[in-house]
Amino acid sequence: MHVSELSTPALLVDLDALNANIDAMAAARPGPALRPHVKAFKSTDLAAHVSERAGHRSFCCATLREMEGMAAAGLADDLLLANETLDPSRLGGLAALDECLITVAVDSPETIAVAAQAARSGPLSVLIDVNVGLPRCGCRPGDAGRLADLARAGGLEVRGVMGYEGHVVGDPNREWRSERVEECVSKLKVAHDDVGGDVISAGGTGTFDLHHWATEIQAGSYLLMDTHYGHLNLPFRQALFVDATVISVNDDRYAVADAGLKAFGMDHGNPAIEDCAVFFCSDEHTTFVWDDGDRPTVGDRIRMTPGHVDPTVAYHERMWVIRDGEVVDVWQVDLRNW
Amino acid sequence: MHVSELSTPALLVDLDALNANIDAMAAARPGPALRPHVKAFKSTDLAAHVSERAGHRSFCCATLREMEGMAAAGLADDLLLANETLDPSRLGGLAALDECLITVAVDSPETIAVAAQAARSGPLSVLIDVNVGLPRCGCRPGDAGRLADLARAGGLEVRGVMGYEGHVVGDPNREWRSERVEECVSKLKVAHDDVGGDVISAGGTGTFDLHHWATEIQAGSYLLMDTHYGHLNLPFRQALFVDATVISVNDDRYAVADAGLKAFGMDHGNPAIEDCAVFFCSDEHTTFVWDDGDRPTVGDRIRMTPGHVDPTVAYHERMWVIRDGEVVDVWQVDLRNW
Repeated sequence: MHVSELSTPALLVDLDALNANIDAMAAARPGPALRPHVKAFKSTDLAAHVSERAGHRSFCCATLREMEGMAAAGLADDLLLANETLDPSRLGGLAALDECLITVAVDSPETIAVAAQAARSGPLSVLIDVNVGLPRCGCRPGDAGRLADLARAGGLEVRGVMGYEGHVVGDPNREWRSERVEECVSKLKVAHDDVGGDVISAGGTGTFDLHHWATEIQAGSYLLMDTHYGHLNLPFRQALFVDATVISVNDDRYAVADAGLKAFGMDHGNPAIEDCAVFFCSDEHTTFVWDDGDRPTVGDRIRMTPGHVDPTVAYHERMWVIRDGEVVDVWQVDLRNW
Repeated sequence: MHVSELSTPALLVDLDALNANIDAMAAARPGPALRPHVKAFKSTDLAAHVSERAGHRSFCCATLREMEGMAAAGLADDLLLANETLDPSRLGGLAALDECLITVAVDSPETIAVAAQAARSGPLSVLIDVNVGLPRCGCRPGDAGRLADLARAGGLEVRGVMGYEGHVVGDPNREWRSERVEECVSKLKVAHDDVGGDVISAGGTGTFDLHHWATEIQAGSYLLMDTHYGHLNLPFRQALFVDATVISVNDDRYAVADAGLKAFGMDHGNPAIEDCAVFFCSDEHTTFVWDDGDRPTVGDRIRMTPGHVDPTVAYHERMWVIRDGEVVDVWQVDLRNW
């Protein structure tokens, strides 16, 4: 089927671009040196493709649903919930599985208590989540050793530390990013000295090649990319698009496409349309202005590029995999919701 | 089940607030004077509740999926696709149904040709969509008569006109909104004079009681509401919330809840938390600062209010219906995607 036959809005994955991204990352971060982040694509089909092509068998997730789906799909030897949870029941369900090693991030006595409770159902490991500057989860570096002791006393295996420099990854100045990563890593080192363990998990798509000390990088956006990361001059190509249909053209020089607020994560701003300026998005519309001479016609297809990959994918139930304009596969976005 | 037993993030509907909103609107706009807009809630369960309580049997939709789902649910006598489509196949499938009157908005020769093609499968009516000032779909008022003639020549029943003053509905100054509605309506009148028909469909939640000429109002947000419409001093209460769990509390005076960019439409800004200031949202987190003296504890539940109802609901697979803290029903968000 040609891509133009799809109902719109249609979420598209350019297979050649995706493969180039997988290969570029695997060259820098092969196998267990990378822990692909499932939150960026929420699809076991896409995870299977990544695993098959590059051999990665350790993944990280942001939700229990992603963990449960990945475990059920049998794609991983090592699954990390890189997030805190207060749900001992579902965490215990994961610990009870034999298929793969389950690890969860903890950053407080409360989250350690939940993990210890879950560990009654099966073996469960933890990483001590350390705040390296992003105002989000993670303990103070100086508290990490005490939390590791508490976890071990609760019967948990402490594999090491993790920290995410999310306040740094999006800056287009590579040198500045690199300096900030050093500052963040120094905090993680302080914590790791007290915690011990083999794992130092950090980073993301914007800093994947700036870490010289982490044992693994948590990156997901590199696979599909978005306009936000597109400004960073990374060795990854845009692989995710939304095709839309022009449903109205106004003589006053704007046109309307049938993809809007429910097809795009909007926190990084409007989606982009080549050679056009996006005016605004409504629930099911994007109003845009075209360049001189390229007046669209009602019924035309246009290709839109999301501003933020993760919350865009989460709006769609499937991705159409395309190569040279033909649909070659369809991947379900089966890990949505919680 | 108590609401505190739900996995988070959990989308909640306060049943008493919803019922009060249904009643307040029905008092002003009873039965066919209101066409509830399905795009705001995407749930046939919620539509059934509205229909049962207030007797509305005409609904409008923004997508073919919403139309197909509403038709299959048998809740409506009269369904309007208040949007343009270029898909004659699915539109024809709707026209072939005997259960209810199907109408579609058209604003160009191309969309009329598609409707005419669909009408080969069954009776199909149109409204001429008129641009009343919002830079989106809709023809020029002076072109409406010509398009109506074209539609009739194509075998379509022309029921009248529609126009949406979306650029006006969100302003908190009621007098200003009222004056702007008059300006918009004057354009719709020009069009209707040339088009004819019984239907003049216009308005939304922000202007539902400012129209004295429209035969029906297209409103959906009034049912569940959001912080954006909450600023307008309308007679509708907030009925939609997302409950989240505090998963981390930082000594530097911020806390983190487990609902973020994938639980909230973000185009109207961050969600709100009572007595707290929201700092920023990440994919599965909201970092917030609390008032003095109310330090949250890890494991606490917090209640969050969305900035924009429609793209928030579209992220969730179900709504938990609550009354006095108890879950009394669950409604599927079954009309997501396209």
